[in-house]
Amino acid sequence: MTADNSVQVSVLGLGAMGSALATALVEAGHPTTVWNRSPGRADALVALGANAVATARDAVRDSQVVIACLFDDASVHEVLDPLTDELAGRVLINVTTTTPAQSRKAAVWAADAGIAYLDGGIMAVPHMIGQPGSSILYSGSAEVFHEYQPLLDLWGTSTYFGEDAGLASLYDLALLSGMYVMFAGFLHGAAMVAPAGITAREFASAAAPWLTAMTGGFHGFAEVVDGGDYTVPGQQSLEFSDLGNILAASADQGISTEMVAAVQRLIQRQIDAGRGKEGFARIIESIKQPV
Amino acid sequence: MTADNSVQVSVLGLGAMGSALATALVEAGHPTTVWNRSPGRADALVALGANAVATARDAVRDSQVVIACLFDDASVHEVLDPLTDELAGRVLINVTTTTPAQSRKAAVWAADAGIAYLDGGIMAVPHMIGQPGSSILYSGSAEVFHEYQPLLDLWGTSTYFGEDAGLASLYDLALLSGMYVMFAGFLHGAAMVAPAGITAREFASAAAPWLTAMTGGFHGFAEVVDGGDYTVPGQQSLEFSDLGNILAASADQGISTEMVAAVQRLIQRQIDAGRGKEGFARIIESIKQPV
Ligand SMILES: NC(=O)c1ccc[n+]([C@@H]2O[C@H](COP(=O)([O-])OP(=O)(O)OC[C@H]3O[C@@H](n4cnc5c(N)ncnc54)[C@H](OP(=O)(O)O)[C@@H]3O)[C@@H](O)[C@H]2O)c1
Ligand SMILES: NC(=O)c1ccc[n+]([C@@H]2O[C@H](COP(=O)([O-])OP(=O)(O)OC[C@H]3O[C@@H](n4cnc5c(N)ncnc54)[C@H](OP(=O)(O)O)[C@@H]3O)[C@@H](O)[C@H]2O)c1
Repeated sequence: MTADNSVQVSVLGLGAMGSALATALVEAGHPTTVWNRSPGRADALVALGANAVATARDAVRDSQVVIACLFDDASVHEVLDPLTDELAGRVLINVTTTTPAQSRKAAVWAADAGIAYLDGGIMAVPHMIGQPGSSILYSGSAEVFHEYQPLLDLWGTSTYFGEDAGLASLYDLALLSGMYVMFAGFLHGAAMVAPAGITAREFASAAAPWLTAMTGGFHGFAEVVDGGDYTVPGQQSLEFSDLGNILAASADQGISTEMVAAVQRLIQRQIDAGRGKEGFARIIESIKQPV
Repeated sequence: MTADNSVQVSVLGLGAMGSALATALVEAGHPTTVWNRSPGRADALVALGANAVATARDAVRDSQVVIACLFDDASVHEVLDPLTDELAGRVLINVTTTTPAQSRKAAVWAADAGIAYLDGGIMAVPHMIGQPGSSILYSGSAEVFHEYQPLLDLWGTSTYFGEDAGLASLYDLALLSGMYVMFAGFLHGAAMVAPAGITAREFASAAAPWLTAMTGGFHGFAEVVDGGDYTVPGQQSLEFSDLGNILAASADQGISTEMVAAVQRLIQRQIDAGRGKEGFARIIESIKQPV
């Protein structure tokens, strides 16, 4: 483990997130080289002590450890593919959000080029970087993860999932899917109460503790799912989970029922398959078998 | 306020929830009369000291305060409509889950019959009744709520929303919609990681704290929604919130994309309307205007 802050690091991409990552490195004392496609975005970092360079090649040349925080997979390839020769023998930590398949492809490309590759998925917004609650998921080279964990820990809690470079992205996107769907559910509720003169703020102050408490139900669902027996007693049945009241009330309020109707369809497919007396967690079987 | 436990109460409906409510009353020392359509369900309560009667009319006759915890609105009407004369002059607290429109109709019926009516929505599962975390929402007669709040507080935190009897149901269903949608989002994530050999339990132990942390975002969304200006700086834009990666990764894992696609459609409608640079909270406008 390299617990010291003498490691020279280069950061490619100084958007909101890349800037936050680079700032944490500079502030921890790492000699940090930064590059961004469009000029100007490095200024604040240079003021903090970073070294800005004009080309991505210059940035790679400067450091043993290269961080890529670009927009998407296509931009990563656009920037890095021409630099394969320069990257050979170095460490590439790619925290750009990509799909698992893209992460795996990047890992194969890196292996072919002799680049030690670690893939990351950032579970935080830029202002959370380096703060409690920031979590970053990694997969790919175990060696890279273990050697540079002290550096990675500057950004948040670092979790390593294994050599399959796609795992961090998969986990990342799975957690994000939960988040976006939850946000839509919250906003559906806020839209329901709005016509009654209840502000979104008032609803949020009830919904946040309520949904927090309800995350306590995940483990019970998970036990049933892992056990594979949706008939174990003590569960709320699919039939009991009829969302007809919510759909009717939403329609009465004049709002779209589409988020709730999507859940109702997952429930209904299991009821139609004769599973109505089984537990609610069984809707995962509807999700696992697309129609 | 009647802070004492000498109030005689009758509970109609001894399903999982009605039994839990009646048990809390008996255990607090209230003389409690219970009735259930099918025989046998009163036995455990009788052993605790409740008085079981053979007809709903007998139960109503016994007490000034009548609690209805039946299956749905139709069962409430089936049981109570023939007892209007007996209920006149008494207090009816209906905690059966109903739509706001059904609650309002029940309040009108009660007012016509001289019944003091309080409507309730239970935000708890039966084993939580009387435990921390149990929350029950009320609307309708303020007088009934204030007079009997000590009794109601035996079941959980009691919140009163106003004289409009539909408000508790509306709030209840809005919070439940958030819950069911969140559950579906969690199970979508669990289905995504399953093919990689990640157990639902392992995923739950990451998803529960993650989604809990993300409920911290509700207030920010709510401020924007209440303010009505989705262009205020510092928000994640709709364009940035493209769910293409999640949809692609879900499809790659061979699972249904329908929950995520439903959110993507809410986003897309705003982008199509030229609002892509505005904040994510704007999806509430897609929800408020059904297509
Ligand atoms: N912001 C968040 O809340 C958050 C959270 C978790 C993960 N992430 C992930 O972090 C990554 C960066 O996000 P961000 O918030 O920093 O985004 P951003 O503010 O939009 O910045 C995008 C960065 O990518 C660069 N870029 C885009 N296309 C490029 C190309 N073809 N060639 C070279 N550079 C290119 C941009 O350079 P220019 O300045 O030249 O345009 C900029 O530096 C994304 O993968 C994102 O999903 C972000
Ligand atoms: N369980 C929960 O987690 C929960 C949470 C929040 C709110 N609630 C609400 O609480 C209410 C009761 O739920 P529960 O869990 O107790 O349900 P349950 O266990 O299914 O019990 C339903 C009750 O309703 C009675 N019933 C049904 N149809 C009837 C009819 N036509 N005439 C007379 N009685 C009838 C049943 O009597 P029989 O025994 O004769 O069938 C039984 O007592 C529901 O509105 C539910 O939405 C429940």
